[in-house]
Amino acid sequence: MSHRLQIGILGSGPAGRTLGTGLLGRGHQVMIGSRDPAKLQTWLAAAGPEAQAGSFADAARFGELIVLSVLGSAAEDVLRLAGLDNFDGKILLDASDPLDFSSGKPGLFVGTTDSLGERIQRLLPRADVVKGLNTVVAQVMVDPSLTGGDPDMFIAGDSEQAKAAVTGLLAEFGWPVIDMGGIESARWLEAMSLAWVVYSHRTGKTHHAFKLIGK
Amino acid sequence: MSHRLQIGILGSGPAGRTLGTGLLGRGHQVMIGSRDPAKLQTWLAAAGPEAQAGSFADAARFGELIVLSVLGSAAEDVLRLAGLDNFDGKILLDASDPLDFSSGKPGLFVGTTDSLGERIQRLLPRADVVKGLNTVVAQVMVDPSLTGGDPDMFIAGDSEQAKAAVTGLLAEFGWPVIDMGGIESARWLEAMSLAWVVYSHRTGKTHHAFKLIGK
Repeated sequence: MSHRLQIGILGSGPAGRTLGTGLLGRGHQVMIGSRDPAKLQTWLAAAGPEAQAGSFADAARFGELIVLSVLGSAAEDVLRLAGLDNFDGKILLDASDPLDFSSGKPGLFVGTTDSLGERIQRLLPRADVVKGLNTVVAQVMVDPSLTGGDPDMFIAGDSEQAKAAVTGLLAEFGWPVIDMGGIESARWLEAMSLAWVVYSHRTGKTHHAFKLIGK
Repeated sequence: MSHRLQIGILGSGPAGRTLGTGLLGRGHQVMIGSRDPAKLQTWLAAAGPEAQAGSFADAARFGELIVLSVLGSAAEDVLRLAGLDNFDGKILLDASDPLDFSSGKPGLFVGTTDSLGERIQRLLPRADVVKGLNTVVAQVMVDPSLTGGDPDMFIAGDSEQAKAAVTGLLAEFGWPVIDMGGIESARWLEAMSLAWVVYSHRTGKTHHAFKLIGK
């Protein structure tokens, strides 16, 4: 898609504005939709004559491709405000996440509230469970040198001492280890393994692993 | 943990055997536990005199640190077979995943069966929803060059045409794009964003993103 596109962006937060400016810089036409388009005056002045602002419905009508860049908790309301019919036959790039911080810990309001790692910790209350090594195949467990770089191993567990011990052990194989917090983070590590599985299914490849860039 | 450890491995599949050999090679004592220890004769012969095999309970009793390397669907049964008390005061490295292929698509038997991306696709049945850009902050969306390498952008959606369009658009910002399949993969991409959030919370950093190494 190298031609000039009409792109609607729903959401006037930092992501929507930055994305809008970036897309204008690549020659696309951009309209940001907001509950309160007046808030976009500063952005419009900086972004140049091609930049436009309007209501959610204006931006949805304007876009051939529409980017959803609002808080996950507002996503479905914003789409209704924008008019569901305005998306018919169009592409919606959904950049939202169902983030839920109401419990005091990061979670998802659509998604999982449990994991096998947590189940196992509940089954073994007097053991220190550390989730790890669950996202790679056998050979990569003991030799993380892969084509294209050195991946990271992500672990989670409630005991700092146990995580330190596992980190030491994994270091003997050459793994840089990233501590993802308490055992409840097994939810995200187990889901990352599904991303791994889906990629394997699609490509037939098995020797790959994730790395966190910019850490 | 640089001293010689007694490590029990529950599971005699490729992961358990490879890990066992790897740990023996780093000077640790290893016992693999299996429902059928006789299956481990070949491994024992190859792994040398320090290698041991036994029942799940033998391996759990043997290990100061125990690695759980069985199918997720068997994990809790295996722990019960091994004797729950045998884990008291010990470290359990849980390398299992709650994989569930019964639907014909990769899923989790503990975990999510929905995502915000899928909800949005259901809300807009005549639009083509593509999940993407949900795992990075605004500035990284339009400039993926990060310290330490170039991350990947993972997308999911049911329309190949829509994914091609989004891939083209993201390429204008310099993103290599990895197609993670249908919109149901939004489950894993939204959970990856939680891994991102947890890391941000723990470190205060925001400019990071995942890369798939070995692809």
